[in-house]
Amino acid sequence: MPSPIEFFFDFPSGYAFFAALEIDDLAARHGREVRWQAFSLGAAFKATGALPLTHTPLKSDYTVLDWRRIAEAKGVDYRLPESHPHAGLPALRAFHWIDARDPATAVAFAKAVYRGYFSQTGLDIDDVAAVCEVARSLGVEPRQLAEGIADPAIKARVREVGEAAVARGVFGAPWTFVDGEPFWGWDRLPMIERRLAGALTTI
Amino acid sequence: MPSPIEFFFDFPSGYAFFAALEIDDLAARHGREVRWQAFSLGAAFKATGALPLTHTPLKSDYTVLDWRRIAEAKGVDYRLPESHPHAGLPALRAFHWIDARDPATAVAFAKAVYRGYFSQTGLDIDDVAAVCEVARSLGVEPRQLAEGIADPAIKARVREVGEAAVARGVFGAPWTFVDGEPFWGWDRLPMIERRLAGALTTI
Repeated sequence: MPSPIEFFFDFPSGYAFFAALEIDDLAARHGREVRWQAFSLGAAFKATGALPLTHTPLKSDYTVLDWRRIAEAKGVDYRLPESHPHAGLPALRAFHWIDARDPATAVAFAKAVYRGYFSQTGLDIDDVAAVCEVARSLGVEPRQLAEGIADPAIKARVREVGEAAVARGVFGAPWTFVDGEPFWGWDRLPMIERRLAGALTTI
Repeated sequence: MPSPIEFFFDFPSGYAFFAALEIDDLAARHGREVRWQAFSLGAAFKATGALPLTHTPLKSDYTVLDWRRIAEAKGVDYRLPESHPHAGLPALRAFHWIDARDPATAVAFAKAVYRGYFSQTGLDIDDVAAVCEVARSLGVEPRQLAEGIADPAIKARVREVGEAAVARGVFGAPWTFVDGEPFWGWDRLPMIERRLAGALTTI
């Protein structure tokens, strides 16, 4: 059994959202599972000196246009919250609290958060109660989760995941490792598919 | 006759190189011509606070890997000069000197410079004599071109083109405008094709 591909995503990124819609099916076509890893780009931005797209002059307007075009091209139900961008720390911490107990539920949670934030309900990913409600619908006990979100151990875990990602060269999201080989961005899904199909030999 | 699409490129960018190999054919499939515009990202980097890819921690190694993969996927004769990146100011100025006299020859010059830098001869795009030799093979008088490269008016023209691009929201290369709509990157060629085919309505 080949090793799972690793999929690093951050909740406020539209590019990560679009990739999250496709990555499981893409991997399954090649007999691979996906290890989902929520992370924050904060540590990477410190290393590269970059700012979040939506806080970068010129880039923010372009990015929002680009996400609309991708949504149309892919037929994705998509609506950017008026209050975008949210940092989404409660959602990020919740992912890791759930992931430590049940990774499959953490993936379902991530997908539900993305749907809520980018396409349907205007989910506030900065709001602990709203995030816990999403998890509750997946069978997670919301009061325990709320305590977990505030737990310094979970905050430390989030920091560790971010720093470990940067140490492996990650500087953007979404980020995918296939057998350790890095692929940055939604735009590289076709290249990931080529690699998984054995049609790309360069390293 | 619809208006030409505008293609902004910088010589040391592998992504612009790969796009330059495709953009004319892509446009022609939809009855469009291409207005080629060499520019330097310096002004854009000032506006966004970004650094050139190859000077950005983490990004430079990834970018070089990514270019190799694109070359393989597209079957492109490709070799990165060991001395990469060159700033390529002489090539940039030469483009604009030629462009002011004969835009078609300027495009041929740009393609020859790309081939020389990224695939064949290890062309030094920082070397005035080497750049003039490329132009000579296209019928440009090399001594006049060398004088043009040193002309303050050409330097001013290069600065104007860069500043005008930034004023229109350009922050990276390659950059394509289709009827004024912006597309950033080699990865957006398929989206440009959708737009030209009338299969993309979002703006």
